Amino acid sequence: MPDTENQKNVVHRYIAAFNAGAADEIAALFNEKATVEDPIGTPAHVGREAIARFYRRAVKTGAKLDLQGSIRVTGPYAAFPFSARLMVGGSEQQVDVIDTFRFDEEGRIAEMRAYFEASDVTSFA
Amino acid sequence: MPDTENQKNVVHRYIAAFNAGAADEIAALFNEKATVEDPIGTPAHVGREAIARFYRRAVKTGAKLDLQGSIRVTGPYAAFPFSARLMVGGSEQQVDVIDTFRFDEEGRIAEMRAYFEASDVTSFA
Repeated sequence: MPDTENQKNVVHRYIAAFNAGAADEIAALFNEKATVEDPIGTPAHVGREAIARFYRRAVKTGAKLDLQGSIRVTGPYAAFPFSARLMVGGSEQQVDVIDTFRFDEEGRIAEMRAYFEASDVTSFA
Repeated sequence: MPDTENQKNVVHRYIAAFNAGAADEIAALFNEKATVEDPIGTPAHVGREAIARFYRRAVKTGAKLDLQGSIRVTGPYAAFPFSARLMVGGSEQQVDVIDTFRFDEEGRIAEMRAYFEASDVTSFA
């Protein structure tokens, strides 16, 4: 069972790697069979290779992520609210997001799902 | 497919009913086969009767819920951050929570899962 501090640490590393544009560092936080549903309800990116490709496109948007509250960790699950700010057509837009993570027994992310504020949905895909 | 405004409305009604201690009003927002996992990873309360029983116990704690940011709605999914303040052993405690809802085609809640800030996990069950 992963411990709470590890999971919060992974969330902080995820955000820092995203803001640094380091897609491969993000992908390394996931396990080999992990799934990413971003936004939730769309076909999942399955496996670390597909996840790395997804994040390479995502960081190219230049979006910057900021935590908007505490990271909620319950057992092998975490959820955290954040904003993503990015330039769209010359103007800065903010999208409010909540990501949920499920962790495996080694403390790596096994499942990620993203909930977007619908009025500002901007898919990175 | 439920529309975004309906889902936000359901979230606001959920919080208002909780704060009014109206467990039956909360349960009426769920469909007959809905599941409630609170906190996530614990055995689900299944069906509206079990859900009503769960919320009758939950509102008895006197917890008051406050939204802490925007309600993220993506298709038939919603997630929202909030705090729950309640008296425990004579002192007020705050628990940070994120709930995720999945809605059915009639706009009722089909699944609820709650992510608690682990350092303050307080099960209502």
